[in-house]
Amino acid sequence: MRPISYKNVTLSGGFLAAHESLNRRVTIPAVYDRFFETNRIFAVTRKWPDNTDKTVHKFWDSDVAKWMESAAYELAKQPDPELERKVEELIDGIEAYQLPDGYFNSCYDAETRFQSRDNHELYCAGHYMEAAVAYFEATGRDRFLKCMCRYADFIDEHFRVKGAAPFLTPGHEEIELALLRLYRATGSRKYLDLSGWFLKMRGTNEKDLPVVTRFSPNYQQDNVPLAELKEATGHAVRACYLYTAMTDYAMEAGDEALLAAAKRVFEDIVKRKMYVTGGVGSAREGEAFTIPYDLPNETAYAETCASIALFFFAHKLLLATGEAKYADVMETCLYNGIASGLSRSGDEFFYTNPLRFDRKAEKRYTMLVSEFPKRSLRHRVKVFRCSCCPPNLTRLFASAGGYVFSEDEDTIYVNLPTSAVFKDADRRVEVETDGQENLALSVRARNVRRVSIRIPEWHRISGAYMVSSIPYREKNGYAIFEAPAMTPEDAAWEVSIRLEGLRPVALASDPRVTENVGKVAFRYGPTVYCMEECDNPEVLSLVADRARLSEAEAEWNEKEQRTELLVPGFRPVFRTEDALYENASDQLAYAPTVLRLIPFRDAANREDADMTVWIPVR
Amino acid sequence: MRPISYKNVTLSGGFLAAHESLNRRVTIPAVYDRFFETNRIFAVTRKWPDNTDKTVHKFWDSDVAKWMESAAYELAKQPDPELERKVEELIDGIEAYQLPDGYFNSCYDAETRFQSRDNHELYCAGHYMEAAVAYFEATGRDRFLKCMCRYADFIDEHFRVKGAAPFLTPGHEEIELALLRLYRATGSRKYLDLSGWFLKMRGTNEKDLPVVTRFSPNYQQDNVPLAELKEATGHAVRACYLYTAMTDYAMEAGDEALLAAAKRVFEDIVKRKMYVTGGVGSAREGEAFTIPYDLPNETAYAETCASIALFFFAHKLLLATGEAKYADVMETCLYNGIASGLSRSGDEFFYTNPLRFDRKAEKRYTMLVSEFPKRSLRHRVKVFRCSCCPPNLTRLFASAGGYVFSEDEDTIYVNLPTSAVFKDADRRVEVETDGQENLALSVRARNVRRVSIRIPEWHRISGAYMVSSIPYREKNGYAIFEAPAMTPEDAAWEVSIRLEGLRPVALASDPRVTENVGKVAFRYGPTVYCMEECDNPEVLSLVADRARLSEAEAEWNEKEQRTELLVPGFRPVFRTEDALYENASDQLAYAPTVLRLIPFRDAANREDADMTVWIPVR
Repeated sequence: MRPISYKNVTLSGGFLAAHESLNRRVTIPAVYDRFFETNRIFAVTRKWPDNTDKTVHKFWDSDVAKWMESAAYELAKQPDPELERKVEELIDGIEAYQLPDGYFNSCYDAETRFQSRDNHELYCAGHYMEAAVAYFEATGRDRFLKCMCRYADFIDEHFRVKGAAPFLTPGHEEIELALLRLYRATGSRKYLDLSGWFLKMRGTNEKDLPVVTRFSPNYQQDNVPLAELKEATGHAVRACYLYTAMTDYAMEAGDEALLAAAKRVFEDIVKRKMYVTGGVGSAREGEAFTIPYDLPNETAYAETCASIALFFFAHKLLLATGEAKYADVMETCLYNGIASGLSRSGDEFFYTNPLRFDRKAEKRYTMLVSEFPKRSLRHRVKVFRCSCCPPNLTRLFASAGGYVFSEDEDTIYVNLPTSAVFKDADRRVEVETDGQENLALSVRARNVRRVSIRIPEWHRISGAYMVSSIPYREKNGYAIFEAPAMTPEDAAWEVSIRLEGLRPVALASDPRVTENVGKVAFRYGPTVYCMEECDNPEVLSLVADRARLSEAEAEWNEKEQRTELLVPGFRPVFRTEDALYENASDQLAYAPTVLRLIPFRDAANREDADMTVWIPVR
Repeated sequence: MRPISYKNVTLSGGFLAAHESLNRRVTIPAVYDRFFETNRIFAVTRKWPDNTDKTVHKFWDSDVAKWMESAAYELAKQPDPELERKVEELIDGIEAYQLPDGYFNSCYDAETRFQSRDNHELYCAGHYMEAAVAYFEATGRDRFLKCMCRYADFIDEHFRVKGAAPFLTPGHEEIELALLRLYRATGSRKYLDLSGWFLKMRGTNEKDLPVVTRFSPNYQQDNVPLAELKEATGHAVRACYLYTAMTDYAMEAGDEALLAAAKRVFEDIVKRKMYVTGGVGSAREGEAFTIPYDLPNETAYAETCASIALFFFAHKLLLATGEAKYADVMETCLYNGIASGLSRSGDEFFYTNPLRFDRKAEKRYTMLVSEFPKRSLRHRVKVFRCSCCPPNLTRLFASAGGYVFSEDEDTIYVNLPTSAVFKDADRRVEVETDGQENLALSVRARNVRRVSIRIPEWHRISGAYMVSSIPYREKNGYAIFEAPAMTPEDAAWEVSIRLEGLRPVALASDPRVTENVGKVAFRYGPTVYCMEECDNPEVLSLVADRARLSEAEAEWNEKEQRTELLVPGFRPVFRTEDALYENASDQLAYAPTVLRLIPFRDAANREDADMTVWIPVR
């Protein structure tokens, strides 16, 4: 498959369109304002106000770059002089202060640069390259792109040709995938080769291994040559950026061994190391992948950026293989573990996305320790010290249209069924849904002989099935619709598809995820649900009725503009008020109740509340 | 009630006798040897070997003192010249190096003493006083006692009379209860008054409050005057030592308000803050009591010393009130959260006693962090840096006989039904049990008009009932047996009691303990059970059969010399090997299995294994 650019796609309704709009109206401006207030903008423009502490953090360039990339996508969709002015001002700074040899980083200079693998300079460089490519593709202007080509040229010389740095590969991957974008934007094979060189050096060179960190070699994916990878290890964001680059490079270079490794790693993630929400990197220690089935809910790290990185990885595998299962994971991430990173207001963010909130742990801490921890894990915040997640969300939602469709010689693929229009010089595919859980799609195509609609994995899980106005055949998880035989070459044709039998479904997890034994989680369509205290007092004491799991009902909440679930359940009643422990059969009664579930992504948008995705059954 | 000294009691069989014997044969010598190897002994004797680092830790005196107290109890029971020599050598050191004004601490001198409330000097002093009283009562020799009286006199002068220290009350309570023992041993009211003074100053003086620590005032029980206490707060060992002293002082001084406060705090503990094992102090942060119902299983701190301290507290309340419910808690602690602190071999110790082991957390850590944590939480060890728990176990098991009986003017109470003989100049009560779960008792009394046998709470919970050879009436949770009417004043009489209907029972916890929702724990008699991986592969994935909880069977394991439980359960089978999450109704099957449970106190005595007390039910 080949991707279809967001520039050829209009999101016209539903989840993605709503997020694109919120992102443009609220999130992108808010992230800029926070970066302005926290001096990140000045670090690049060098227009420091008087009396300002000029300390720059090593992550800041990547924050600004991702914001620039987000702005670029919006500028391609509609003019916005103010937004453009902000980006140009940042480019002015980059151009003005880029070193003569091409190096650019706000935190380091010619003296201090490239001294430690953990200084994130290649990571920041990669994000600038992505932003430069996005800005070039959006506006056709190449000033920023040229700056970044000079930087890439310098990096090629410094690392690959001269081996002048005390390390060979970045501590935080990113540049590998960015170089591939730079290659495609410029046509210069040097960038493809440099990307491949970074990939080939990883896990195979002696220079990087002795670097002493708190973490073991697999933290930075140094444990094994990439083509031999069998499992996902280490820092989840770094890992998934790397796997994204691996897959993309393998496609470009026709490297079957590397592609096979990427597929193995992906299977390891989704079958053993991914939360039901698409969250990955369960361990707070190292923000990392851990051993199989180690998926604690309350202490889940599940960084927003890690789900985004997994989304990118899955997208590359989708393009490489044409198999719908990769788009299933993209969708799971998007509707759940990614979207949960953003408040409904659009201007507050989660870094970590745990699947259970228990305020007791926080109260415990407040009670015992005088200095209350600065940040509650249950409140999204406006900016982080290391604020990688907010601009990662903005760039993803700004370019979300680019993930809906893809193509090959004779087919347009609908990977994320939602209301959207693909249009280029002579072709057009229009998808309309009911805007909710894709219960109905109407597809109109012109100048296209074949449209393939992904059959989501959640159709199968919930026992739903497609009914369509014209017959289809299935391949690789797609329903393939052919233009009716008599349709003239450039004529329009239509197909309408209805999803029948979609119901909320109770999911069990593999029993090796020990914390979830005896519990279920609910999913309706692509959306994973949770139960929050705001709707369910004493929420963490409630249980679902095992005999009536299939009676869970979806209900549209007009005020909140979302589908909620009503699940038959029980509220345990402890008959002996005086005891903490009692004979279970004598003392524990169960009062019937109805559990109200909301989308996981919507948790923590009301008052402070306990929450759980996994619900014990009785 | 008045206590009956361990000196008048012979433990003749069952749990306590076995532990007393193991303690004498293995644990007391082992603890001495470890203290010798770690220089603790030299810190007191000052017979430092050459080339030895003479750094002394501020806890060391208390470690040595508790070992001396343990040895004293054993010396009262039978001569042991080698043991006596070791104690005398330590007393030599104390006598030789006690400062002229009475101060003694191996870690501080006249210059450095009493500068910080957190230096544990009054805590160490208290433990020396307890040891001195025990040694005096065991041997009749008062050399050590006199040393400690001089020290107590100095403390009275320094703290109460002169207010010469920069603080008024100890950061770690203990001396308050020790002074009461010193008062009873010497008859000197000064020690009673000093204990009362420390108690009255706590939470009421300005001097102690501004002390800056990481922890809030309730960590050191400074938040409120003791008579106003409503809840248990802060460091659990410190708290329960304080509550023990409060209760004892209230009894001695007839302070009803203080006694009422102690009772309130006790109720707060057992109804809201105690694990089913009798563990207390659930929070690792501060080793402390937290908010009600905050009882996480895997991260439970539940320090061995805290259960011992709760045992002491409950014992004082038993004496103050005569109510059996306090002995219920003593027994729960003793058979579970205390006994679990000791390996079956008798020479290895747990500091913390979690109710669930999940090796995933440890594997996660090993995988990610180069420096593996020094100590696995799942292996008992021979000595700790702060080795308070081992000699706390030795002194408790060495004096365990002193908790079996108590008396008032006309009654001998059997508080902990076990095989034991009480004998003094003219009276004798002999209790024989079957040595297991007290399924049968035979009591023979001479020169005693009334014997009251505690009816354990677990009789009620398990639906068991007493059948006795003579009728009884119930009061305060005791079955009161009167000598048959015709029995001459000094004649022997007998009663035999059988417990009928005792069965393993599945306990539920108050649903506000959210982690235990949908789970049960098993108890058989006083013993709480757990399920360990050694007997149950994939133990943390197993569930109990809700419909057959009452079919759990007890089975004697001759090899291991313990009763084990067989519980009908299921092993979940996930039909889709390829998925981490699936439709619960389609994909999750349950294969019947039998869960084998062992006493919680016996966990972690075989190979490295996962374990859980609370088992999900289905």
